[in-house]
Amino acid sequence: MSQFWSQIVHTLAPYVPGEQPKVANLVKLNTNENPYGPSPKVFEAIRNATNNDLRLYPDPNAEKLKQVLADYYHVAMDQIFVGNGSDEVLAHIFNAFFQQKLPILFPDITYSFYPVYCKLYGIEYQTIPLTDTFSIDIEGYSGSNGGIIFPNPNAPTGKLLPLNMIEILLKNNTNSVVVIDEAYIDFGGESAISLVDKYPNLLVTQTVSKSRSLAGMRVGFAIGHKDLIEALVRVKDSFNSYPLDSLAITAAVAAFEDEDYFERCCQKVMTSRDNLLLALVQMGFESVPTAANFVFVRHPLYQAVVLANALRQEGVIVRHFKQDRIEQFLRISVGTEEENKQLIDVLRRVIQ
Amino acid sequence: MSQFWSQIVHTLAPYVPGEQPKVANLVKLNTNENPYGPSPKVFEAIRNATNNDLRLYPDPNAEKLKQVLADYYHVAMDQIFVGNGSDEVLAHIFNAFFQQKLPILFPDITYSFYPVYCKLYGIEYQTIPLTDTFSIDIEGYSGSNGGIIFPNPNAPTGKLLPLNMIEILLKNNTNSVVVIDEAYIDFGGESAISLVDKYPNLLVTQTVSKSRSLAGMRVGFAIGHKDLIEALVRVKDSFNSYPLDSLAITAAVAAFEDEDYFERCCQKVMTSRDNLLLALVQMGFESVPTAANFVFVRHPLYQAVVLANALRQEGVIVRHFKQDRIEQFLRISVGTEEENKQLIDVLRRVIQ
Repeated sequence: MSQFWSQIVHTLAPYVPGEQPKVANLVKLNTNENPYGPSPKVFEAIRNATNNDLRLYPDPNAEKLKQVLADYYHVAMDQIFVGNGSDEVLAHIFNAFFQQKLPILFPDITYSFYPVYCKLYGIEYQTIPLTDTFSIDIEGYSGSNGGIIFPNPNAPTGKLLPLNMIEILLKNNTNSVVVIDEAYIDFGGESAISLVDKYPNLLVTQTVSKSRSLAGMRVGFAIGHKDLIEALVRVKDSFNSYPLDSLAITAAVAAFEDEDYFERCCQKVMTSRDNLLLALVQMGFESVPTAANFVFVRHPLYQAVVLANALRQEGVIVRHFKQDRIEQFLRISVGTEEENKQLIDVLRRVIQ
Repeated sequence: MSQFWSQIVHTLAPYVPGEQPKVANLVKLNTNENPYGPSPKVFEAIRNATNNDLRLYPDPNAEKLKQVLADYYHVAMDQIFVGNGSDEVLAHIFNAFFQQKLPILFPDITYSFYPVYCKLYGIEYQTIPLTDTFSIDIEGYSGSNGGIIFPNPNAPTGKLLPLNMIEILLKNNTNSVVVIDEAYIDFGGESAISLVDKYPNLLVTQTVSKSRSLAGMRVGFAIGHKDLIEALVRVKDSFNSYPLDSLAITAAVAAFEDEDYFERCCQKVMTSRDNLLLALVQMGFESVPTAANFVFVRHPLYQAVVLANALRQEGVIVRHFKQDRIEQFLRISVGTEEENKQLIDVLRRVIQ
């Protein structure tokens, strides 16, 4: 603790990201990365851009990337905001829209960065419990509020809220910003981007970290009404003019241009997910229905922490959250077929 | 303007970065980039890291980079904070230390992002006029304050405050954080990093954007007492866990490991700067003494805006600030010998 800190620093409760182990040869199923690498065209684009132009500042507006996203999602360029991973985009969203008189709303079980942002910006929040089957209860979001945010599919449950339910929620809530955080949408969900022209208070965020296999390059974006985007641009340009470096822009552009690779990759992950889930269910695990690149499971006879430790001892890392209602669950990222097999093999030795 | 914005968004006055033109073949002397590209070893390192590991999140603590910086500057790893360009590092500094009861102090002529950060975080500031010869007047910083920040060499003047003067300022000011923003220190200045073990309220920031030729990769850092670094880490981990992507970390590490290239490159820029300045003085320009990779000059007979426009018409871009006391000055980044010659040639046609 230091006499020199601003008061706010004493009150912060920083987010703890999943472990990025320094040890090689681990089966890393703890942070929902894609088990497959990015498109070969991404590598080619990065290598071509690795030249003397790196001495120059990047385009502060990343227009090339915005153009590609505009074409891909059939929106205008001024409906797009890009940032250093969807975490940075979300941080700016909390700052730009959620500092309101009323508390914002999000589920009791959700992405654990949301309350951290609230502390950072002095935002009050109220959590709305998921139903007993871990569904988002849209009735709970119908009262007055300062904003609404949740991931869809939700994290860490993986459970999807269908688009027609999101539209009901939007119809019930026209006076505050609704943010749908679609980090995992490409693994079987339907994006709410199709609704942004109809609802000027809707903002949809996505990332290249999961379905585009580029967690290492830190690119996220938000799509919504141009007035919402303008607020984000103002905040960003008051914070850091160039959050995306030249190679990050290049990599993201190339990833969106290789649609074929993207579709095959997502398909492979979804097939492996379904195989993994089936194997786990056959071993007695109970599962939340998942539309993400991870499964969220518990075993009625074995403690989650015991299973997580047993896996860790055999070099397989999964995520376990010490949190009410979900402390008996494990969140397991979908790996390659080989990695999933290793996971299952270890579990078979533990679970008789 | 939008009903959905947080109140703060209406009050922001975003920073306007120097133009990054989309047109090719311009002589770009407006944003103080290095005229020479990064080390070939940087390219090699980036190409080697362009592989399937990009699917994984980067190390959130960028320990490899911190280790290289610790060795380079002879400090401990917990005395180092890294971020997405020194602009992001500065933003976190304003948040972490400058939200105080007393206003912070910076020069009247300085980096124009400082007042922008103040708006973002609701920080009051007071500007201390540079002397008539554009020196930082350390007497002006001796009263009670909420913090002190200035670039050294100062921007956009390029004028250096000698290290012994900084130490006097630190001795006069032990109750608030003093930030020395050394974006341009490698072009002839002496870094205040040597003082961080002596003054627990001193924080020094640097960047790879100028002397390391990597503006395109967005890496900046701060060095100071570990308690100051801890505050920055708390803020960063409440905002974005992974501000540096994998290739940015790789590039910065390689740049610091090629000391020989770095020294030759800085030497070339300094020699070109001195040649450029001499040529300008011979044409009747008046100059502020510069220790940066740019010159700050005015001509007693020609309006700065007229000269800037004439240069622009011939494809040479320089920076002109419409600001009191300096509106007759041009800030000209040092280019290659060939670029500097083009600049001089155009000016010779204008100035008879």
